[in-house]
Parts: sequence; C-alpha cells; structure tokens
Amino acid sequence: MNGTATIGRIDHVGIAVRKIEEALGRWTPWLGAPANPLEEVPTQRVRVAFLRVGESRIELLEPTQPDSPVGRFLDQRGEGLHHLAFTVPDVDAALAEVARSGGRLVDTRSRPGAGGHRVGFAHPATYGGVLVEFVEAHP
Amino acid sequence: MNGTATIGRIDHVGIAVRKIEEALGRWTPWLGAPANPLEEVPTQRVRVAFLRVGESRIELLEPTQPDSPVGRFLDQRGEGLHHLAFTVPDVDAALAEVARSGGRLVDTRSRPGAGGHRVGFAHPATYGGVLVEFVEAHP
Repeated sequence: MNGTATIGRIDHVGIAVRKIEEALGRWTPWLGAPANPLEEVPTQRVRVAFLRVGESRIELLEPTQPDSPVGRFLDQRGEGLHHLAFTVPDVDAALAEVARSGGRLVDTRSRPGAGGHRVGFAHPATYGGVLVEFVEAHP
Repeated sequence: MNGTATIGRIDHVGIAVRKIEEALGRWTPWLGAPANPLEEVPTQRVRVAFLRVGESRIELLEPTQPDSPVGRFLDQRGEGLHHLAFTVPDVDAALAEVARSGGRLVDTRSRPGAGGHRVGFAHPATYGGVLVEFVEAHP
C-alpha cells in the first residue's frame, strides 16, 4: 500500500474540554452552531459536538467519566488540542500500514466512532506525540 | 463584525518537534514531501516545514533556540500538537474582534509569518487551552 495516496483530508481536530456548553460559547461565534445535536460516544466515554470549518471540523470532547482517556488527559494536561483525525478510504488498512511500518496502535481494528463512522487510533508514540485518528472517508 | 463569516478553513495544524528531519520521516510516507524547502521564521524562532493535506497543511515546527516559545513548549509538554491556524480575510480585524469580545491576545497586531503571510496569535486562555493563529487567506 502506498500510504501517501490514502490520506484524504483533515477530518477533524479534537479538542478536550471540561464543559462542552462553555466551549461552544467560545467557538460558535467564529464557526457557527453545530450541524447536529451533541452526541454521546460510549466507546470513547465522551460527549462530542462537531463544528464545520471548510472541509474539516472541530470536535469538542467532554469526558462522561473522569477515569476515561479524555478525563485523564484533562487531569494531566488541561484543556486543549487532543487529537488529529484524517480521512482514509479503509481504516483497517491504515492501521495495518502503521503496524507494518513499525508504529504502535491504540486500536488494532477499526470500531464505530462519532456519527457511526469507522475509526481507529494510532498510538501517540508513532507520530511524535500526536494522537492520530483515522476516520473512514464520508461526505 | 460577524465573526462567524470570517473563518475560511483550517490553514494548518502546528506540531512541535525536536528534530524536523526525523518528523518528516514519520509524516511524509502519509502526506508526501513538503512542497517548499524548510523555512526559518525568525519572528517565531522556528524552522518549519508544511505538508499539504486537502485544503489544509500540517506545519512541523522545530525551535531554533531553547529559550523560545516552541522550545519552552517542548520542555514543558514534549512533542505534539501545538497550535491551530484558521484563514481569515483580515488578521488585524480578527485580532480586534477577539479583544472586543473580551479575549486575550499574544499579538495585538498582525506580523509576518511563514511564507510571508500576515499572521497573529490569540492567547490560549481565550480558546480553552488552544493556541489559535489567524492567517491571512491565501491560495
């Protein structure tokens, strides 16, 4: 697989927040209101809102439990940039490509993420401290 | 000014790295090589490389001095996501809008950034821990 050809665009930039309603108050004057209502993603133990910006989105993430990945992130680092998501045609193929090239993974297989799209995370160690998510390409 | 109308797209996502050549080795298999050679931005005391992804770019930032904003970021937080840049038609107007709405600024006026484009930074406190950069709209 030629990895270069598989990344389509930045699907979204994930931002960890303590209170999603407060965060929306900061962002919606610039980006407009979310197209969809707040969504709970049980597999990641977060409530999320997506704000469209060009071909990408900003994802605001509020943990639903303190002892969750985003809850621990907030404890350790505070609010701020959390992850970077790229569209790929095939999430499982992208994860396999990371593993084949010696990278570490959070998810060895894709799973359902926000909006029901297939997603999968590489480990931050693979991309120099950046938590990278692959999201199946969608409109 | 209606802020909602002024954000065009994600211009780039800035990633702080210790060695830009090593970071390019991680990212170019996915995103392809930089369109332009490495560039030094004296006003920010960094060397940068931009990798195109869709309508946006990934900016890799290596500090040229330890006692610089990105150098201190690396000391305190390590490598990883550093800032989020949006295109706006007028950087000074965007900075003025942040100030008018009670936000804090790093730059009260725009200044030349990478590629010679006008840029300006809001303070992370304004956007819940996210360092936001405004970049004048360009092709």
